[in-house]
Amino acid sequence: MTSSGAILVLSGPSGAGKSSLIKRVSEVIGAHYFSISTTTRTIREGEKDGVDYYFVSIEEFEKDIEAEQFLEYALVHGNYYGTSVKPVKEALKAGKLVVFDIDVQGNMSVKNRFGDITTSVFITTPSLKELEHRLRLRGTDSEEIIQNRMQMAKREVQRISEYEFFIVNDDLEKAAKFLITIAKAARLKIPTSTINKFIIDWEN
Amino acid sequence: MTSSGAILVLSGPSGAGKSSLIKRVSEVIGAHYFSISTTTRTIREGEKDGVDYYFVSIEEFEKDIEAEQFLEYALVHGNYYGTSVKPVKEALKAGKLVVFDIDVQGNMSVKNRFGDITTSVFITTPSLKELEHRLRLRGTDSEEIIQNRMQMAKREVQRISEYEFFIVNDDLEKAAKFLITIAKAARLKIPTSTINKFIIDWEN
Repeated sequence: MTSSGAILVLSGPSGAGKSSLIKRVSEVIGAHYFSISTTTRTIREGEKDGVDYYFVSIEEFEKDIEAEQFLEYALVHGNYYGTSVKPVKEALKAGKLVVFDIDVQGNMSVKNRFGDITTSVFITTPSLKELEHRLRLRGTDSEEIIQNRMQMAKREVQRISEYEFFIVNDDLEKAAKFLITIAKAARLKIPTSTINKFIIDWEN
Repeated sequence: MTSSGAILVLSGPSGAGKSSLIKRVSEVIGAHYFSISTTTRTIREGEKDGVDYYFVSIEEFEKDIEAEQFLEYALVHGNYYGTSVKPVKEALKAGKLVVFDIDVQGNMSVKNRFGDITTSVFITTPSLKELEHRLRLRGTDSEEIIQNRMQMAKREVQRISEYEFFIVNDDLEKAAKFLITIAKAARLKIPTSTINKFIIDWEN
């Protein structure tokens, strides 16, 4: 059995610590590809095009929607966010673990397309209060954005049961250990096409 | 987050090496409970009542069916095999990983009842020929039973895609490593009831 590509979806409120956790997973899982989203939002200080996001204009983004270049996309807080399907397919072909940081809708889109090889994890703070605290501490968002994020978090948390796993990030070390365990198992998922081929070959 | 109980279902042809693999998992996962089936088949040399199976009469078994004491049961090669639900619930309550060695139908029964906390793995030989070879090597079964097992294996292999994971046991060390990775992640599944409680508490 050679390791075929697989997908790990991470969702959860902005401020739940997903980025720190993804960093820890990427240190342990060598053959991974962190899916970079495309967005029309303004680039923040310290961010890099092609690293944090692909930053494009609304016109470019809408052209790609027309051309069906997105695995999923969403309009959030007035900005487009989306995932191009091409690099995902290439990474899977290379046997990598593709890691997504996407929202609840995005998780559904990935599952519809790649359900057989997808493991999904919802990551959250212990409470809404703690989320608010972390968002204010971060100091990157306006009051309006913070309120938006909290409203969105409230809606997303309602849908945790759409995920196979759920991690409360109240201790980064412990949460990282949990996520690494899940990521290692996620890599072992096998595409239905491979299974079907195995079944045919098995009797002969 | 405290570790709540969870379930690991292992299915696959008799002769695929499930018992050896379960032994390896049990060495690594401390808090586990290996579900012991109840059967009406004749006790084999070297087997112990209450260790390998609970050996009962057909009358006793059918009485327990009436009393709805089985999570699942099946009639295989003219003998009843079943799983009592009571010890499973007790082990889950104690936060243990309950390990099942059951067939494809049994997997469905467990999923219907405990789907939120169940991880299922199908284990097989690389080929039907290899399965036959191992069954003959084992030397415990009559020719008729071997033929029955092979027919049953052919049917079960068709249903691999009902499982979340699939392991070809062509190398015991490698297969054990895979299964241990899956078992560790399996323990992290959280019951829907716990998630629902978390959601309610989260906003307050």
